[in-house]
Amino acid sequence: MKSSIGVGLIGTGYMGKCHALAWTGVKAVFGDGPRVRLEHLAEVSQEIADRKAEEFGFARASGDWRTLIADPAVDVVSVTTPNAFHAEMAIAALEAGKHVWCEKPMAVALDDAMRMEAAARASGRVAVLGYNYIQNPMIRHIGRLLEEGAIGTVNHVRLEMDEDFMADPEALFYWKSEASSGYGALDDFGVHPLSMLSVLFGPVTKVFAHLAKPYPDRPTKEGTRRNVETYDIASVLVELGDGISGVLAFNRSAWGRKGRIAVQIFGSRGSITYDQERMNELQLYSTADRASEQGFRTILAAPVHPPYDRFIPAPGHGLGFNDLKIIECHELLRAIRGEPARVIDFAAGLQIEKTVHAMARSHHEGRWVAL
Amino acid sequence: MKSSIGVGLIGTGYMGKCHALAWTGVKAVFGDGPRVRLEHLAEVSQEIADRKAEEFGFARASGDWRTLIADPAVDVVSVTTPNAFHAEMAIAALEAGKHVWCEKPMAVALDDAMRMEAAARASGRVAVLGYNYIQNPMIRHIGRLLEEGAIGTVNHVRLEMDEDFMADPEALFYWKSEASSGYGALDDFGVHPLSMLSVLFGPVTKVFAHLAKPYPDRPTKEGTRRNVETYDIASVLVELGDGISGVLAFNRSAWGRKGRIAVQIFGSRGSITYDQERMNELQLYSTADRASEQGFRTILAAPVHPPYDRFIPAPGHGLGFNDLKIIECHELLRAIRGEPARVIDFAAGLQIEKTVHAMARSHHEGRWVAL
Amino acid sequence: MKSSIGVGLIGTGYMGKCHALAWTGVKAVFGDGPRVRLEHLAEVSQEIADRKAEEFGFARASGDWRTLIADPAVDVVSVTTPNAFHAEMAIAALEAGKHVWCEKPMAVALDDAMRMEAAARASGRVAVLGYNYIQNPMIRHIGRLLEEGAIGTVNHVRLEMDEDFMADPEALFYWKSEASSGYGALDDFGVHPLSMLSVLFGPVTKVFAHLAKPYPDRPTKEGTRRNVETYDIASVLVELGDGISGVLAFNRSAWGRKGRIAVQIFGSRGSITYDQERMNELQLYSTADRASEQGFRTILAAPVHPPYDRFIPAPGHGLGFNDLKIIECHELLRAIRGEPARVIDFAAGLQIEKTVHAMARSHHEGRWVAL
Amino acid sequence: MKSSIGVGLIGTGYMGKCHALAWTGVKAVFGDGPRVRLEHLAEVSQEIADRKAEEFGFARASGDWRTLIADPAVDVVSVTTPNAFHAEMAIAALEAGKHVWCEKPMAVALDDAMRMEAAARASGRVAVLGYNYIQNPMIRHIGRLLEEGAIGTVNHVRLEMDEDFMADPEALFYWKSEASSGYGALDDFGVHPLSMLSVLFGPVTKVFAHLAKPYPDRPTKEGTRRNVETYDIASVLVELGDGISGVLAFNRSAWGRKGRIAVQIFGSRGSITYDQERMNELQLYSTADRASEQGFRTILAAPVHPPYDRFIPAPGHGLGFNDLKIIECHELLRAIRGEPARVIDFAAGLQIEKTVHAMARSHHEGRWVAL
Repeated sequence: MKSSIGVGLIGTGYMGKCHALAWTGVKAVFGDGPRVRLEHLAEVSQEIADRKAEEFGFARASGDWRTLIADPAVDVVSVTTPNAFHAEMAIAALEAGKHVWCEKPMAVALDDAMRMEAAARASGRVAVLGYNYIQNPMIRHIGRLLEEGAIGTVNHVRLEMDEDFMADPEALFYWKSEASSGYGALDDFGVHPLSMLSVLFGPVTKVFAHLAKPYPDRPTKEGTRRNVETYDIASVLVELGDGISGVLAFNRSAWGRKGRIAVQIFGSRGSITYDQERMNELQLYSTADRASEQGFRTILAAPVHPPYDRFIPAPGHGLGFNDLKIIECHELLRAIRGEPARVIDFAAGLQIEKTVHAMARSHHEGRWVAL
Repeated sequence: MKSSIGVGLIGTGYMGKCHALAWTGVKAVFGDGPRVRLEHLAEVSQEIADRKAEEFGFARASGDWRTLIADPAVDVVSVTTPNAFHAEMAIAALEAGKHVWCEKPMAVALDDAMRMEAAARASGRVAVLGYNYIQNPMIRHIGRLLEEGAIGTVNHVRLEMDEDFMADPEALFYWKSEASSGYGALDDFGVHPLSMLSVLFGPVTKVFAHLAKPYPDRPTKEGTRRNVETYDIASVLVELGDGISGVLAFNRSAWGRKGRIAVQIFGSRGSITYDQERMNELQLYSTADRASEQGFRTILAAPVHPPYDRFIPAPGHGLGFNDLKIIECHELLRAIRGEPARVIDFAAGLQIEKTVHAMARSHHEGRWVAL
Repeated sequence: MKSSIGVGLIGTGYMGKCHALAWTGVKAVFGDGPRVRLEHLAEVSQEIADRKAEEFGFARASGDWRTLIADPAVDVVSVTTPNAFHAEMAIAALEAGKHVWCEKPMAVALDDAMRMEAAARASGRVAVLGYNYIQNPMIRHIGRLLEEGAIGTVNHVRLEMDEDFMADPEALFYWKSEASSGYGALDDFGVHPLSMLSVLFGPVTKVFAHLAKPYPDRPTKEGTRRNVETYDIASVLVELGDGISGVLAFNRSAWGRKGRIAVQIFGSRGSITYDQERMNELQLYSTADRASEQGFRTILAAPVHPPYDRFIPAPGHGLGFNDLKIIECHELLRAIRGEPARVIDFAAGLQIEKTVHAMARSHHEGRWVAL
Repeated sequence: MKSSIGVGLIGTGYMGKCHALAWTGVKAVFGDGPRVRLEHLAEVSQEIADRKAEEFGFARASGDWRTLIADPAVDVVSVTTPNAFHAEMAIAALEAGKHVWCEKPMAVALDDAMRMEAAARASGRVAVLGYNYIQNPMIRHIGRLLEEGAIGTVNHVRLEMDEDFMADPEALFYWKSEASSGYGALDDFGVHPLSMLSVLFGPVTKVFAHLAKPYPDRPTKEGTRRNVETYDIASVLVELGDGISGVLAFNRSAWGRKGRIAVQIFGSRGSITYDQERMNELQLYSTADRASEQGFRTILAAPVHPPYDRFIPAPGHGLGFNDLKIIECHELLRAIRGEPARVIDFAAGLQIEKTVHAMARSHHEGRWVAL
């Protein structure tokens, strides 16, 4: 491969900045891989683009993302714009021969997700989605423990994802309550736990969902009230392959939860639990311990849980949310180099989207839906 | 009322001993109420009955429970035998004019539960079920907080009940895996969370359940394997009155969980969580706190949470599981005195049984079942 | 021994009630031992004594404790009066040939403690102090783990004991701030951690203490302010036998701490921690685990940790503070029967008192004091 | 100031990489401040320097740190070499007119620290030490809460710092056990808690210390055993200004502790606790809450705790250890710009060093030492 790689970044919001930090740090953290050239940044106006390029250290800036995609110095494009734009931008980038790193969820409409997957397949390029939680060394270690049979055969899982940014009933109506944004918690949140299930257990085979609106309407800026069209709460029963039963519960109006992704995995010889709000810990219960000393042990992230060691040589010092994106960026670079990589590519991402849509259908039809 | 009350105890296992300790301690703990006379104890043989009467301090002992029920010195009967005997014994006691304190669940068959409820109604006596978890001062305090609107209007609840006594796949087949014992986790566990929902929120209106077997068969003493007929895992979506959506999850093969009943209650102005394994704590998140100091606060049981004060005058020193039965016993005595009491009587208990059976039907029919 | 034992109880406050509950429940919980006869209760007036005897179920009541001690039906005397009375009552009871169960601390003055110990020695009776925390099955299990070498050779310990009943600076001056009550946190609290050290590690050999007053004066009922004479905070460095270094920290003005006794024990192959506010748990870290799974495991109290099994046959259901007194009562009965028993007798108690007084001297002289 | 700043980095180990990542990310995270030019990297050999310069993205590399200091493109020098080299390098850099960012501890010998402080004063340049823990938004928020009087007047503090890298008794003897490295836990660890005390409470006024060796000797590569010369455990009583009493406990052989810095602060109206192993949380207990709802609330790091907001716009998602260095780097840049900055400069650092040496003297003389 080339000894350097040219990066284009579209979007500079929450995730745009997160990508910028990942591109900036990945070489120094991991030591390996190509030198990263921050070539081109695109925003909705030239003025914003210029300002952000200066902040993030990009060489050039455009008010039109198509200019960025046409830039021959750009090898890979980070797409971090609102979900509605993902399909158009990712497909254009792939068709221009660029690798793509697109934020989740893939797209609002299933149709768009299918077109994205098709474009990725046709391009021969690497197309990867921003499912950063699976990059946590603790989640990786859970995968290793499962593979080793540390808790025997898994038979039941529970995943909860809860935040509280929709919890205030008197917060103004905004786009997250519009049907055009999707179903609500189901796609806004559900895709993250599904990405974890995907890397740890494989595909979901059957779903039954119940969606709920904690608040039927919300105030508007105009002083009126408007009906809420999305569901801030989703509760889902699932079956995975190999007879694993599961419960998924998502709530974006859960006061006090800030970034909770609580995982419980039950097996024939033990259990594993994890909570994203304490992302540097996992809990393991093993029946291999003597009966009088069995208990959930809290394991702190440490250099023995790669790639934690690339960040800090001392155990228990803690990675942060942004560090997960650096790991994801490194996996993307591995995929580009043709090496085995831990990523959710567009094919795996499409499977997640299909699962979400099956859940929504299940809710409306009041019955199990198979995948 | 009489200044003393005569107690009969049928059964001396786990719950029989627990009742005996409650009857022994209730007067000294609460100071009020009648003097408790331990009059009569019944077991399956005279020999066991004699031995246990000596241990528990009962005046007389019988190898036939009907003798106990015929004893005119007995005013109230504790029924703590296996579930299959509850109906016959409770009905006989009520018909003999005794008050009844019967362990949960009410009965295996819905029919039996209905006969028990009818007998209680006809008798004019107090008939109460042993749902001890609702007696925890922390659960009471949750009720008080909800009534005060401390977390606004509740819109979502989650309850999990998990233990691990069925978690070992190579443990011998025994009666808990037989269909004659009931559905499995659903009735073995589900009734406890339902008793909590009952006192905190009122009736469940709609259910959808999924039952699962983590282990399809188990070894027998004879060296063969026998098919498991009950479901150790139950996952249930529910709707409560007032548009509250809920998720219930029960697992009696959950390695590492010993007495977990994890409650999460989400409202429009805060949240409350609780875990029975740390039964002297509850967590409250309130949006009344300043934004930069909002967080779940861990409240330790204290004399300000009655009737904790009757046990210990110092905060944070901790009640135990057996203490809950003393509180339940005191509530029973209040009910007998005609005072308002926090109990699950046979009418409320029947409602819980109906809910459990509706869940089972939902599983078999793959659809929502209304109550 | 006799098949029954006659009990006398002096005092009916916090600890008096706790003793009454222990005497009431011990036979039913443990099944073994003599039948307990509640013979005689003494309080400061006949009227209070009568009322409490009715509540606690005692046969006779006196307004003069000497009448109780003269009662031939009384075999053992529970002394639960204010500390200033311990010496006189305990010595009188021993001289009357009774066994004695006296609440901690032994006495305010070291001289009194020495006379108590001499009286016990001379009497040939059992004389035991109410150090209930050492009776927790979790603390016993820590002892077992240490004996087995589960954490190798211990080299460092830390114990903190914190409550907040003296934390309000504007609470009225009362006797706990008078010098006649003792040093403050040092004797009020320190004796409990010292009882733990005593059963787990043996005697303290060297101490250095620093005492502090968080509030120099307090308001009085009369509207004036009065100088505080005791120290609500005590910080102590210690050496135990075998080269173990330690830190003890006591604070009875620690807002938010309700019954905290936090123990940290460090060894050459692991560590153990414990907190009395979660008295049904202990944490064990063992280097025998694989490096990538080492972590503090939270072990819940269970039937495998005797005598938890005598209370509840299911794990993780939780003992309470009052249950510890039942265990202590059972140990006392074992001692009376001449069996090996886990108790702090007056000889061991005197050693604890001497240690406390050495700490106070160290504070005043600003130097290490050897024991 | 100049619109860009030239950076020189000496050392590329644990802290060298951490500085490199901070310099790389600071502009993108904060958006403000000068553009950062990575000008020059020095290591012990040209070969290592070249390799690391490529990894970290530095323009030039030298095998001799004096070349770096002579480089006119370098405005600020990061000194991250072993402690023994700090004085020589920092003083040379200051004398060459560079700003200095030097890792802690300042120096092994007090004399060296004094010379460094004098050189900084003489130079008029910014000279800052790498005390990163004080940069945690949670620690800053504790400071804000204290200033606001959220817990009233502070009267007692406890700080523990524990790790386990010296806990294995059979690990080979290496330089950390040599007297030339310092006292042991006292300076290796103690300086961190002292930096926290320094920013939260001001200077320590009086100390009493006890140092201990958990293992008197260790194996060598040669198969012999060598006496350990440093103290892996340090326990210290302190007094701060305004009558605050304190306990400090440091242990670098504490099995299971990986990066624990446990802080407990007690005031007249509440308490605050914190543990570095869960660095995105703090606990606050306030008596302003209603009595029945008082409890330690767990506050998760969020955008309302600046500068968390510069990293992530969503609450509860978590910063990592390396992020603290980015904040420290930003504070350094503020200091260089002449703005108020939260840093431990060489003057404050010298005070910390003096405190550590006073502790060691106290241990050897067995008495309180005033500062």
